[in-house]
Amino acid sequence: MKLLKVDTVEETKNKMEHHFRKHFLEEIEIDTNKSLGRVLAEDIYAPFDLPEFHRSTVDGYAIWSKDTFGASDSLPVFLNYVGMVDMGVDTNLSVSTGKAVYVPTGAMIPNGADGVVMIEYVELLDSHTIAVHRSVAPGDGMVLKGEDLKKDSLILKKGRRLKPQDIGALAAVGIKHIKVLEKPRVAILSTGDEIVSPDEEVPFGKIRDINTYTISAMAEQMGCEVTFKAVVKDDYHLLIKILEPLVKENQIVIISGGSSVGTKDVTAKVIDDLGEPGMFVHGVAVKPGKPTIIGKAGNAALFGLPGHPVSAMIVFKIFVEYLIHDIMKYEIEKNIVLQALADTNIHSSPGKETYQMVIIEKSGEDYIAKAIHGKSGAISLMTRAQGYIKIDTNKEGVKKGEKVDVYLL
Amino acid sequence: MKLLKVDTVEETKNKMEHHFRKHFLEEIEIDTNKSLGRVLAEDIYAPFDLPEFHRSTVDGYAIWSKDTFGASDSLPVFLNYVGMVDMGVDTNLSVSTGKAVYVPTGAMIPNGADGVVMIEYVELLDSHTIAVHRSVAPGDGMVLKGEDLKKDSLILKKGRRLKPQDIGALAAVGIKHIKVLEKPRVAILSTGDEIVSPDEEVPFGKIRDINTYTISAMAEQMGCEVTFKAVVKDDYHLLIKILEPLVKENQIVIISGGSSVGTKDVTAKVIDDLGEPGMFVHGVAVKPGKPTIIGKAGNAALFGLPGHPVSAMIVFKIFVEYLIHDIMKYEIEKNIVLQALADTNIHSSPGKETYQMVIIEKSGEDYIAKAIHGKSGAISLMTRAQGYIKIDTNKEGVKKGEKVDVYLL
Repeated sequence: MKLLKVDTVEETKNKMEHHFRKHFLEEIEIDTNKSLGRVLAEDIYAPFDLPEFHRSTVDGYAIWSKDTFGASDSLPVFLNYVGMVDMGVDTNLSVSTGKAVYVPTGAMIPNGADGVVMIEYVELLDSHTIAVHRSVAPGDGMVLKGEDLKKDSLILKKGRRLKPQDIGALAAVGIKHIKVLEKPRVAILSTGDEIVSPDEEVPFGKIRDINTYTISAMAEQMGCEVTFKAVVKDDYHLLIKILEPLVKENQIVIISGGSSVGTKDVTAKVIDDLGEPGMFVHGVAVKPGKPTIIGKAGNAALFGLPGHPVSAMIVFKIFVEYLIHDIMKYEIEKNIVLQALADTNIHSSPGKETYQMVIIEKSGEDYIAKAIHGKSGAISLMTRAQGYIKIDTNKEGVKKGEKVDVYLL
Repeated sequence: MKLLKVDTVEETKNKMEHHFRKHFLEEIEIDTNKSLGRVLAEDIYAPFDLPEFHRSTVDGYAIWSKDTFGASDSLPVFLNYVGMVDMGVDTNLSVSTGKAVYVPTGAMIPNGADGVVMIEYVELLDSHTIAVHRSVAPGDGMVLKGEDLKKDSLILKKGRRLKPQDIGALAAVGIKHIKVLEKPRVAILSTGDEIVSPDEEVPFGKIRDINTYTISAMAEQMGCEVTFKAVVKDDYHLLIKILEPLVKENQIVIISGGSSVGTKDVTAKVIDDLGEPGMFVHGVAVKPGKPTIIGKAGNAALFGLPGHPVSAMIVFKIFVEYLIHDIMKYEIEKNIVLQALADTNIHSSPGKETYQMVIIEKSGEDYIAKAIHGKSGAISLMTRAQGYIKIDTNKEGVKKGEKVDVYLL
């Protein structure tokens, strides 16, 4: 097994970009109405003009706008009422000078008309005559064919994570199927002799697995498909046997290690031996998260996460999210960032990128970030924390009252 | 049908609280590992101390801390090595003065020990003797039984929308099933003679339905279960027939109306006739969204949304979200709010709460909100908008350079 020096976060990301530059997701075709949150794999262009015809935006009379110029309450213009357009129906009526056709909101504007006067400004004199009390400019009360979207104009860009309004837009132009990226397939293992699945009997002395739960929920929240999760004994041959098919079937395989020295060694060796090029990061200058391992076997990215739940979550956010979002270009919802003021001085670890869990309180107009601490593995820290702040490698902590970015959890 | 005056947003919310105060969701039991994003229906207490035993947080030797006081490199303390604790295993070893037991990180601390000295500060002299080069304070290198969570202490509060770390915490204390609120059941109809489902042939003159797509995606994003969606002809008897079973089976029924006068009237009449007390809001002083209708039939809340997609989305966010989140206490992810500076003066409608769609640009340290406009029904407006700002009823627009809250879409 290669012996590697501890990398900075920056160096780690550079190595990841080098090794995972060909990591990609296949395109698949799915139903538009099942595409919420999926990542678009193609540019979408309008297949026709929208609207497809001149449409009324008011209830009123389609007219020849020049006819109404100068019309007022005291000097109305009289027009010949020649019929009405029904909602949702094609019309063969047309408007020329002196004529008017009734159009409800949303209905098609007859040929020749270039404006619609709202019914509020119209008086019905008899079944053939209306009086118009206001002048109408060309285009008033209507939306032109293609005014919303021109045929072949770009509606949605490749790479966009689809929102409700995007799905509405696709429906509007009749696009029922779209190409999206397949969901990244992720397999998640917890290992360590002290770890037991919560589904099993827990003998005194052992502890229940947490990481397959938190990490798979984080992966799902990101839009990944978790294909496998299990607690596996800390045994080299067993791990290799379980992992061999998983690295073929998944883009990402995550092993959260037990916290003992022995377990860490086994995870590193397994990640190194599963295939070429093997392990290329073994230890990162980040706190928490130093024992992070990253490697590659075939087409799968392999991550060895620390066993402590909070550390595992932080390392997942830093590196697995980086792979998915930045390298594989799978758009995810990023953490909300809140600007807050530090409640006290917060220390950082020299030479390490430091992540500090915080709770947030409102004080007048400001948000206050309070650092919270817990011994390693504390789950209460995890549920109490509302977010975290990041202190850069070269920064000597945060001073009380300093403005900080809080990444909400 | 009752004739109602237009209500302010505030009055509408008050009426909703009055009529929907008994609107509630049943509690159901589900698997913890399927509970991401679900709303907890019970307080969760720790069923036992966590950790369940004193645990080591380092690889080292469990000792009697007093033995090490004063130990240093130049003056080490010699202790009798009596054995080791295996990971994840109960131990019957104990430590008294002069003794030391090896413990890996995460392992159980033997009885009698009150501190762990890290292996870095220990020298193995022979198979029975170690030299300790540093003094250890009581509690160093270990976490006490119950230090993370005391038995019966509150872990998660009722009403919380479960995050990945919460699921991890539940796993940590072996809670495999939890009570959550059932998902609000929502039925969504689009009506209007000009509206056609995108799944059907679209004759020239008609337009494709957008609102069942956007509104159902918004409801799903909020954690609701969309039980029904359809485009229905603008026919009183047909609507009543389709809606009668839906108001029995859903907590929320949404009808987005066509834009013509006739359609609006039918929707109002249907909402009023479906059951007691019927319609109680008919028109709200909000822009866009004036033709909003709200009513109640049996246990179902009924909403008549404007036909224009952007208006329908805004009204959904104002009132349906208010019902679900504030009245039914179904915790949802609220919009991210970003502080930005207005790019230009933005006008509001006097006496109306005004919603203005914006795009956001970064300018140095600041975010700039640019108002964007589109004729009614414009779908390009919907996909271009990155968020909206809200201008209160009594506020006369926003001045260029003024700080505004942007609700991201």
